[in-house]
Amino acid sequence: MPPAAEAPPATAPRILARCQELVRPALAETVARLHPWPAEMAAYSFGWCEVGGAPATGSAGKGVRQALAVLSAEAAGAHGAAAVAGAVAVELVHTFSLLHDDIMDGDPTRRRRPTVWKAYGTGPAVLAGDALFALAVETLAVTPDAHAPGAVRRLAATLSDLVRGQADDLLFESRPWTGPDAVSLDEYRAMAEHKTGALLGCAAALGAVLAGAPEETVTALERAGRHIGVAFQVVDDILGIWGDPAVTGKPVHSDLLRGKKTFPVLAALGATEEAAHRTAARDLAELLASPDALDSEATARRAAHLIEEAGGRAAALKEARRLLAVADTHLRSVSLLPGPAEELRALLTGLVHRVV
Amino acid sequence: MPPAAEAPPATAPRILARCQELVRPALAETVARLHPWPAEMAAYSFGWCEVGGAPATGSAGKGVRQALAVLSAEAAGAHGAAAVAGAVAVELVHTFSLLHDDIMDGDPTRRRRPTVWKAYGTGPAVLAGDALFALAVETLAVTPDAHAPGAVRRLAATLSDLVRGQADDLLFESRPWTGPDAVSLDEYRAMAEHKTGALLGCAAALGAVLAGAPEETVTALERAGRHIGVAFQVVDDILGIWGDPAVTGKPVHSDLLRGKKTFPVLAALGATEEAAHRTAARDLAELLASPDALDSEATARRAAHLIEEAGGRAAALKEARRLLAVADTHLRSVSLLPGPAEELRALLTGLVHRVV
Repeated sequence: MPPAAEAPPATAPRILARCQELVRPALAETVARLHPWPAEMAAYSFGWCEVGGAPATGSAGKGVRQALAVLSAEAAGAHGAAAVAGAVAVELVHTFSLLHDDIMDGDPTRRRRPTVWKAYGTGPAVLAGDALFALAVETLAVTPDAHAPGAVRRLAATLSDLVRGQADDLLFESRPWTGPDAVSLDEYRAMAEHKTGALLGCAAALGAVLAGAPEETVTALERAGRHIGVAFQVVDDILGIWGDPAVTGKPVHSDLLRGKKTFPVLAALGATEEAAHRTAARDLAELLASPDALDSEATARRAAHLIEEAGGRAAALKEARRLLAVADTHLRSVSLLPGPAEELRALLTGLVHRVV
Repeated sequence: MPPAAEAPPATAPRILARCQELVRPALAETVARLHPWPAEMAAYSFGWCEVGGAPATGSAGKGVRQALAVLSAEAAGAHGAAAVAGAVAVELVHTFSLLHDDIMDGDPTRRRRPTVWKAYGTGPAVLAGDALFALAVETLAVTPDAHAPGAVRRLAATLSDLVRGQADDLLFESRPWTGPDAVSLDEYRAMAEHKTGALLGCAAALGAVLAGAPEETVTALERAGRHIGVAFQVVDDILGIWGDPAVTGKPVHSDLLRGKKTFPVLAALGATEEAAHRTAARDLAELLASPDALDSEATARRAAHLIEEAGGRAAALKEARRLLAVADTHLRSVSLLPGPAEELRALLTGLVHRVV
């Protein structure tokens, strides 16, 4: 093995692959403990099989959460193996939330395949989500580790955060675009922190908790994860409007067509600093206020153009970079092993730089 | 206060009311910590409010699970208050499972009111169930009690059992009534133990765990709860066919009309001992095998008659009594405080004797 100094710097895909290799056997073994029916739906959802159980050829998830858990444990001085139970738990919770959110959002496709409720039916998809949820808690609770109870407490709080974030996200859809009842950017940030930040923060925290890291380190890693989670959501919002559907796996403009209160739109509507921004913001508000707003691809395209004109895209990018910087500050506030900390930073930066 | 000897023996409704009084403040406080939207759906589901939040006038659940937790703690020598976190957790889990099961089963009414998915929509009902699930785990996990980690482990295992039981119950619906692929009584018992027994067993176990009872006592109480849970399910099956809809709150013959594999039907179809039973069993199998089986009230009524003729009702009653006796044996196998143990027995007997 060459000395570390001569190895090429690890990039996000290589880091993700290394962590996935470490976690995958335990994850597969854990999912196999489920009743065969939810087990198949779970495996389908992980991208491991097709409907009926045949091995899948498509792409699986990136495994960001398991990687955060593993890297945090390593950054706290332990072997990545210490984090595996936590990594499995957060991946199970993530998949649970995708399954149930897709039902609530009525999303028919994910990663270019039918969502579980589309492929197996709504009732079975509810069941599969519940099975993953229960399995996540059980996996951590039975870990023979003195730190397990603390880990379970964190996971439980995260589950409540996820529900809170999803509730707000759904309620935002029926709120007006402008006026006193409009969704503010701070409300958006709180929603995104619950919906996306909490689980990334939990993943990072669990790695450190299971590594036996001091409370201060756990808190710093958790905060870094939470901030990067909100950044991740903002980046997702950008990709949802301007991303290539072939890459995102989501229909173009789907967030716009559904009236989702995403960061770029909210930032655009609130643009007041430059005259050109204000004009575009006014036109955008008018377009969104018309009764047949965004019911066609053409108006969605015009809305996307106005959001960009009003500075919504630039504001979202700026916000994502700001959050990445805050996450980085948290990481640098505690003493971490340099190698894994560097990988952690490379991973977080990679998540945000998908759009830059 | 008169000496205990002069007090009238506590009956099931009085025992349930006493335990409910002890648990209700903590349960209400816990539910109030939810996001307001799932909190309203949860309160509706508990029978505390109507859609929109106005106070409810209808009847709430019986609170069997919370009572089991409280009585177990008392029987193990502690104050019932020791069990409150466990009692709250099992009631939350119970309500979660009702919410999600009603979606999967497509049940439009429960306790003479629209089910949550009917009243609020499927997506919101999924969310409310998730919120209760998360809250249950969190409630136990944050309990400042040395026994909390053990309690969480038991709850987590129970959650997995619930999902397993519900999966089997749903899959049973598409299995044939007769032939090699028919559902056996042992398969039914395993399903009912997961779906209903596990949570009643967990309730009884949690009370004892939080009371600091020895492992032997916890196990005996858990086994008693599991057996009584299966008995409870068998009794529910009987009421689902011959019960008064005004009392059960369910449409008459609804289980039959949906082709549910309930104990009385399975026992009737397997009847071989008496000639009259065999004839009725054959007629029943024929009726169920016809393509338009049970699509009308008239055929459902005829099926109910044949089930009784074939001895299915008597067999179910016998099974419920057998399970009650096994539960009682478990209770008597360990040393419990006589007063609470007597109340526990009165409660369990009352649950089974709803139909006797």
